[in-house]
Amino acid sequence: MPGMDSEFDRDTAVTLREPGVYDAELSAGWTIIHAVNGGYLLALLGRALGDALPHPHPFTISAHYLTPSVPGPAVVRTETVRAGRTLSTGQASLFQYAEDGTEVERIRVLASYGDLDALPDDVRTTAKPPAIPPREHCLGPGDGPAPIPGSSAITERLDIKLDPTTLGWAVGAPSGKGEMRAWFGLADGREPDPLSLLLTVDALPPTSFELGLTGWTPTVELTAHIRCRPAPGPLRVSITTRNLAGGFLEEDAEVWDSADRLVAQSRQLARAPRG
Amino acid sequence: MPGMDSEFDRDTAVTLREPGVYDAELSAGWTIIHAVNGGYLLALLGRALGDALPHPHPFTISAHYLTPSVPGPAVVRTETVRAGRTLSTGQASLFQYAEDGTEVERIRVLASYGDLDALPDDVRTTAKPPAIPPREHCLGPGDGPAPIPGSSAITERLDIKLDPTTLGWAVGAPSGKGEMRAWFGLADGREPDPLSLLLTVDALPPTSFELGLTGWTPTVELTAHIRCRPAPGPLRVSITTRNLAGGFLEEDAEVWDSADRLVAQSRQLARAPRG
Repeated sequence: MPGMDSEFDRDTAVTLREPGVYDAELSAGWTIIHAVNGGYLLALLGRALGDALPHPHPFTISAHYLTPSVPGPAVVRTETVRAGRTLSTGQASLFQYAEDGTEVERIRVLASYGDLDALPDDVRTTAKPPAIPPREHCLGPGDGPAPIPGSSAITERLDIKLDPTTLGWAVGAPSGKGEMRAWFGLADGREPDPLSLLLTVDALPPTSFELGLTGWTPTVELTAHIRCRPAPGPLRVSITTRNLAGGFLEEDAEVWDSADRLVAQSRQLARAPRG
Repeated sequence: MPGMDSEFDRDTAVTLREPGVYDAELSAGWTIIHAVNGGYLLALLGRALGDALPHPHPFTISAHYLTPSVPGPAVVRTETVRAGRTLSTGQASLFQYAEDGTEVERIRVLASYGDLDALPDDVRTTAKPPAIPPREHCLGPGDGPAPIPGSSAITERLDIKLDPTTLGWAVGAPSGKGEMRAWFGLADGREPDPLSLLLTVDALPPTSFELGLTGWTPTVELTAHIRCRPAPGPLRVSITTRNLAGGFLEEDAEVWDSADRLVAQSRQLARAPRG
């Protein structure tokens, strides 16, 4: 059971203020330049919903990002939309405070929760784990000839080793393919669980870097399906963009665990950088 | 401009009752056996949101299906969550009435709307249109040796011609692959638009048929991205399931228009049939 010795658990903690309402503190430890990472925020909202709803795990969670979040106090307001036998549906909004104290909505989420541990064991999958070199042949922020630029607070909390074939952008030679692959873990060794997968699906550099576009890629909407409780050990993440058009792009993420199970699938719609 | 001579437009019409609230009548013409098609319902909700929000087109729309809808009266209650310059975010719920007149929520939706006609023309895509035989080599409900069983009201309103290689289920020989491909149009010739694409992404037989599972596949959540206004003419739809596990499966849909543009992408999480 993950506890408060984990940075992720400490920084996504929520405190019940009244039924369905939770106080939170957005940590500066999960920022990229000035922005708070969207996956970290989704995990925090997911934790509040897991407390408010009768079922523990996000089976499918859809987030629409409204305004940029900043480190500091926040409140999560949840609503139980429907409580069923095997699935419950809930809604949650993350608010922060304007200078005059009024609440400003940052993110709104709809989600259906269930119990992953109650599912049958059947698996019929044609999906294959991503082709990614062994971890020792992949590269992180501290690794020699290809240091990852724009180092941010979040990189200290993640243990990401990128597939060198998706790292061309870091040495000024993007591949032109909308692909990003990496080994993923939390830097303090905290093992993956359904909640941390919500961070994992949105924690790699954007695929637009490999398309030669180096600006900000703000998420409009992200939906994640958590399909299986992840086994302990390193995760593999593959992100693919197939269609950059009209100033928007999609990012499809898959997360595989150490037991070769597809544990999460996500897709987001993001604004493409102008660069 | 589509008008009331179109079955789709007539049956997805909404009438303003008061600001943000719309009356509707769910038509029995879009049912599969007893259930009202989820794509038809999404299009109806999408129409109400397009009226309520300052932008016309659903760029990304996420629907969580709560209880089964039935033909008859309904009300859509919308909320404008945020109105921005290029994107607006809204929420909508479809309710029907219990015997005592109380409202029962059927579907809840979060969506971000924009203006497809205001987007730049840039397209950088690696996605390829689905490999599907010419329309005259594909098969519809009325075609000879492989009639599609379980004929329902909705089949009369759609002009669907299925790729024979994804039609094994109709002759008792499912391929075992989670794939379904078809040419798609509306039977009365109404041309596609951003709203009708919300129907298109959820209108084919479920991929589970080709996996040899013949029961009901109820949608838990469906998110669709509308990426481009479709050109007139027939659409091609490809649906893929890669991971059937723990009693759930995902269905990924792509819709391509007659100008070879990827106009819509969607993914749903559904309960797998037990069969």
